[in-house]
Amino acid sequence: MPVNLPAPVASSLLPIKGIKIGIASAGIKIEGKADLVLIKIAQGSTSSAVYTKNAFCAAPVTLAKQHQQQAAPHYLLINSGNANAGTGEVGMQSALRCCQAVAELAQVSVNTILPFSTGVIGQQLPVDKMTTALPTAYQNLISDNWFDAAHAIMTTDTVAKAISKQIEIDGKTITVTGMAKGSGMIRPDMATMLSYIATDAAIEQSVLDAMLNNAVEQSFNRITVDGDTSTNDACVLIATGQAANSIITSIDDKSAQLLYQLIADISQQLAHAIVRDGEGATKFIAIDVQQGLNTAECRQVAYTIAHSPLVKTALFASDPNWGRILAAVGRSGVTEFDLSKVTIYLDNVCIVKNGEPASAYTEEQGQSVMNQDEITIKVELGRGTAKDTIWTCDFSYDYVKINAEYRT
Amino acid sequence: MPVNLPAPVASSLLPIKGIKIGIASAGIKIEGKADLVLIKIAQGSTSSAVYTKNAFCAAPVTLAKQHQQQAAPHYLLINSGNANAGTGEVGMQSALRCCQAVAELAQVSVNTILPFSTGVIGQQLPVDKMTTALPTAYQNLISDNWFDAAHAIMTTDTVAKAISKQIEIDGKTITVTGMAKGSGMIRPDMATMLSYIATDAAIEQSVLDAMLNNAVEQSFNRITVDGDTSTNDACVLIATGQAANSIITSIDDKSAQLLYQLIADISQQLAHAIVRDGEGATKFIAIDVQQGLNTAECRQVAYTIAHSPLVKTALFASDPNWGRILAAVGRSGVTEFDLSKVTIYLDNVCIVKNGEPASAYTEEQGQSVMNQDEITIKVELGRGTAKDTIWTCDFSYDYVKINAEYRT
Repeated sequence: MPVNLPAPVASSLLPIKGIKIGIASAGIKIEGKADLVLIKIAQGSTSSAVYTKNAFCAAPVTLAKQHQQQAAPHYLLINSGNANAGTGEVGMQSALRCCQAVAELAQVSVNTILPFSTGVIGQQLPVDKMTTALPTAYQNLISDNWFDAAHAIMTTDTVAKAISKQIEIDGKTITVTGMAKGSGMIRPDMATMLSYIATDAAIEQSVLDAMLNNAVEQSFNRITVDGDTSTNDACVLIATGQAANSIITSIDDKSAQLLYQLIADISQQLAHAIVRDGEGATKFIAIDVQQGLNTAECRQVAYTIAHSPLVKTALFASDPNWGRILAAVGRSGVTEFDLSKVTIYLDNVCIVKNGEPASAYTEEQGQSVMNQDEITIKVELGRGTAKDTIWTCDFSYDYVKINAEYRT
Repeated sequence: MPVNLPAPVASSLLPIKGIKIGIASAGIKIEGKADLVLIKIAQGSTSSAVYTKNAFCAAPVTLAKQHQQQAAPHYLLINSGNANAGTGEVGMQSALRCCQAVAELAQVSVNTILPFSTGVIGQQLPVDKMTTALPTAYQNLISDNWFDAAHAIMTTDTVAKAISKQIEIDGKTITVTGMAKGSGMIRPDMATMLSYIATDAAIEQSVLDAMLNNAVEQSFNRITVDGDTSTNDACVLIATGQAANSIITSIDDKSAQLLYQLIADISQQLAHAIVRDGEGATKFIAIDVQQGLNTAECRQVAYTIAHSPLVKTALFASDPNWGRILAAVGRSGVTEFDLSKVTIYLDNVCIVKNGEPASAYTEEQGQSVMNQDEITIKVELGRGTAKDTIWTCDFSYDYVKINAEYRT
């Protein structure tokens, strides 16, 4: 059961002028289930993408990066059920053959196709199944298809993740719609498992790149489920320019800032949705580290807490065993750490004050916060003014069950 | 159920001349269960100790370090059930009061007492219970008490961990006996949860220090259950000098090397016992990383694999999902990593050869290794000649159960 994450309503997802989406069932996941998504990007759009930093990145990531350097993308081809990762030279050929099949259907150059795969690692991609199903997706390219697409890219996700927002710029209505998938192997490093966000605004390439990078830094790069950076992470931002606004050429413009904030909000909501739907999650946890020398050390402390199996199982059990948080802070590796300045809160309940157990703390107060399904762990380091926040979930029986039975 | 870890047999644990052990039930764990251990070290012994590097170290660790700098220890006082960690200034006073109680009983200086605690973090030590039980432990100091002591220091351990070995040096029989406790919050950094090893050999202080440091590096500092470095880790090595051998003054002597090997073997067996009895463990895993530029990067790769919840749950499920091992190697952060040189084995089954799936690999081969309860994951980095090995266990439902219910 995801934590406070309602399923998206189909009618709330707004089409983006210049984006068409086709869907098919290639039989990669389960016979009859949609697992193939083709996204057509209109000519004249700008697009930007960030990818996993895992050194063992998947074949589609390698190929998408190459293609993106060579040409403006016309099509994104996404499959779920198979990650095409750890598949060597055969995997590279498989990704290329799928792109070639799209290129032939659409009569475009092969390097205008960006491939994306998500699912089991280490199995060869069933290329024939994909190329057989592709014409169905191609023939069904329609604008109003984000809802089904958000479902088709799911793997261990239990809820689809998609959202739309609108603002007015220059008297024109600008729409942004985004979707994401991800639930396990989540500790993104430049992007999440897979996310696609599109707007009909006109945005210059360099501004679009900056918007994507900033938004990802504050969203997908600030979450973790299990600390396992995926081989297939990717996040794409597309601006089709069909809303007839004057093109945005600087991120500092007022309208650019309004639009950026919208994109950043959507990115953060999608990132939070991944954590809320984290494998086996029963709680949504914000870890807020303040008063650090720099944001890097704040993040280091936050991730040490977020990755501690002992903290995560205590959260699952609603046990205010704050000693485990303290032990995690202590082993986080911050240099010249003065414990006598550290203060820790569960929501607004102070548990450790200046390195000592808070005198006013009672187990009842801690229990009352721990019983909630959304909790903020706040750590004040007493060293400076930097801060950072990340989001994570707890660690339950179901996490073990889902991952022990993943391939069975 | 621990993995291939038989309980020690009382008669196999040999007393060490110069060491006496007293045991009592202070009612810290469960009423009537032994939880207090007093170890008396004869005059003229040398002793060495290493402690946790967790910045939030427990009060007894801080006090033991201070006392050790001031005087040669006469008594070690160990309690289980309460870690006296995260207890602030009150905790320091509690540890000191317990030491004072021993000092008064034994008529020795307070700084010759080293305190050790293990158990729940963040609760004040019940000093009165301890001082009430202390006279019982003191009056029962006997040589032949390692078996009961190994049981009294247990917390979530399911099996006691203790071992004895003998060799002949200078025509004299030398005995080494050691015990350890630990099962969760295990990712030692300079020592394990708690371990005490004693020998009747005569060993000079500097040689004893070197022996302990080397032995710990190859044993307790090479294991992990859950990546959580404890606040209370400590390992003590004592040489009573009562075997009448000529004092060992250089670690390079042939007899010193023989004795060191024995101590190292005992340390490694105790360290392995902690992993075999790791919380919820069903498998014992060696991770052997070879062909690195240096041992540090070998260790970095090994720990990234060992801490991956996805690898650990796949091991629990006996699922040869080697893609998760590959993904962990890829995110381990080794700089300028050439994947085309990486080869990975499950025992003697090659799964990845030069960065590509091994052509001869079959799922049946992988499954057959995964079905075992002891598995070696070998990674060849193809960068140099350095290597390192660590030991860990899998991640099961029971790990979550044990840690979710720890305080209930």
